[in-house]
Amino acid sequence: MDTAVTSNETEARVRAIADGMPVLGKLGITVDSVGDGTATMSMPSQPDLSQQHGYQHAGITTLLADTTGGLAAATMMPEGTNVLAVEFKINLLAPARGDRFRAEGRVLRPGRTLTVVEVDVFADTGERATLIARMQQTCICIPDRRG
Amino acid sequence: MDTAVTSNETEARVRAIADGMPVLGKLGITVDSVGDGTATMSMPSQPDLSQQHGYQHAGITTLLADTTGGLAAATMMPEGTNVLAVEFKINLLAPARGDRFRAEGRVLRPGRTLTVVEVDVFADTGERATLIARMQQTCICIPDRRG
Amino acid sequence: MDTAVTSNETEARVRAIADGMPVLGKLGITVDSVGDGTATMSMPSQPDLSQQHGYQHAGITTLLADTTGGLAAATMMPEGTNVLAVEFKINLLAPARGDRFRAEGRVLRPGRTLTVVEVDVFADTGERATLIARMQQTCICIPDRRG
Amino acid sequence: MDTAVTSNETEARVRAIADGMPVLGKLGITVDSVGDGTATMSMPSQPDLSQQHGYQHAGITTLLADTTGGLAAATMMPEGTNVLAVEFKINLLAPARGDRFRAEGRVLRPGRTLTVVEVDVFADTGERATLIARMQQTCICIPDRRG
Repeated sequence: MDTAVTSNETEARVRAIADGMPVLGKLGITVDSVGDGTATMSMPSQPDLSQQHGYQHAGITTLLADTTGGLAAATMMPEGTNVLAVEFKINLLAPARGDRFRAEGRVLRPGRTLTVVEVDVFADTGERATLIARMQQTCICIPDRRG
Repeated sequence: MDTAVTSNETEARVRAIADGMPVLGKLGITVDSVGDGTATMSMPSQPDLSQQHGYQHAGITTLLADTTGGLAAATMMPEGTNVLAVEFKINLLAPARGDRFRAEGRVLRPGRTLTVVEVDVFADTGERATLIARMQQTCICIPDRRG
Repeated sequence: MDTAVTSNETEARVRAIADGMPVLGKLGITVDSVGDGTATMSMPSQPDLSQQHGYQHAGITTLLADTTGGLAAATMMPEGTNVLAVEFKINLLAPARGDRFRAEGRVLRPGRTLTVVEVDVFADTGERATLIARMQQTCICIPDRRG
Repeated sequence: MDTAVTSNETEARVRAIADGMPVLGKLGITVDSVGDGTATMSMPSQPDLSQQHGYQHAGITTLLADTTGGLAAATMMPEGTNVLAVEFKINLLAPARGDRFRAEGRVLRPGRTLTVVEVDVFADTGERATLIARMQQTCICIPDRRG
């Protein structure tokens, strides 16, 4: 993924959105990188986040993808705004098993109101990366209601 | 939602799928009811599951909906099988704030291989129920790989 | 479907949107009814709109559903506006064979900017109606650029 | 798009699926290329396929994308089978205006039963190509019921 260098201000603003989400700390999700129209987040595999076959629950994979897509969209939005996902669709392509899970979001089309994003989720085990999910997401730019 | 009485065997089989998912215990999600082609699950509001505005993170709402849809689909599947969601789409309709969150799944079309489900998610505060999300989901019937 | 009576002005405005679409005439699609947050459209079965098994092509079924959803959304929008679908997802539930195809749209959540709609598509043969597709759609309200 | 050379037999089989769809002839849609896990189809702009603003109706754009995705999926399926889309989601990214419309499908994950495809749709005007839509689609492999 081509993560063009983004400004320090934009990166700080986008990382602050993630820092404001308590659920990310609870699930061990971190921001790996932020670029112009891109973001990458990841999390370790955790047995207590699994479903009935021992794989990571699809809802957790989706939460990772949804958040990553939102951050990617936010990089294209101006200061003083925040981002919300209004809808998304995800295809679960392979069992979510691995040492870590990593989502890469990329803006397909930025807009003043709506921004459309695609997100790939990979399961990483050693050097091997397996594509386990693909999301297509619509985000909306809203006034920043915090502070 | 019309939750026709289902057989004890089917209900036990479907509840066992939920019991096998560690993530549900971690998030406080419980099975409220199981019917013929329907399921209802719910969870209490929890500050550590929130996003940057203090509402429940959309990914958690989605996990609740996804699991509920899967159980609704499983009620239409035979003994010796299990269920996986292959894809879903969710529209987030209102902020996820309330005392509890409750998902109601209903099979739109059962099938030998694929079953399509719709799921509504409500935020409950006292007597008031607000529709906060709608999911459309495709599940696949697989051989039960456990035990 | 509960099609509450809508005002004559709203119905005329919404029907005018359909009248402005040349593709509807080409495909024989007509507006059957318009209500508050609802719309119904239908079309006859036509051999030259079929796919490789002789059923109506899923893209035609989708066009019918998409247009119907847009009209349902438009009933909730003010004078001087128009409607565009920004995205939708459709599940194809059964083969599209019948004498006529009929779509029923219903607004799930109206909004100043975005309106979310569900649409059912039925194949009608004599008295029998078969649900062949379900769509979940997001529409945006835009200034009316015509005239 | 990387369109690896596919076997003559596969290409002939996949093109025959398109040849069997009367709706493609009616709408002027042709198969441009078929590769391993890929397909490209296109159509000229036609005033009688437009919506209320004079752009190509989203349903027609969707039909083009849906068919292209199905052909891309079919390239990964064995002899004696056929393909059906079970569901798809499309984001409409820009107005559909141009001289021609072109869809490029690419398999994200092939499977024995289900194959997941992404499709980009471009509006071509002279040398300029504008991305107007992105689809994420699930196809199912079925026994060939023809002949």
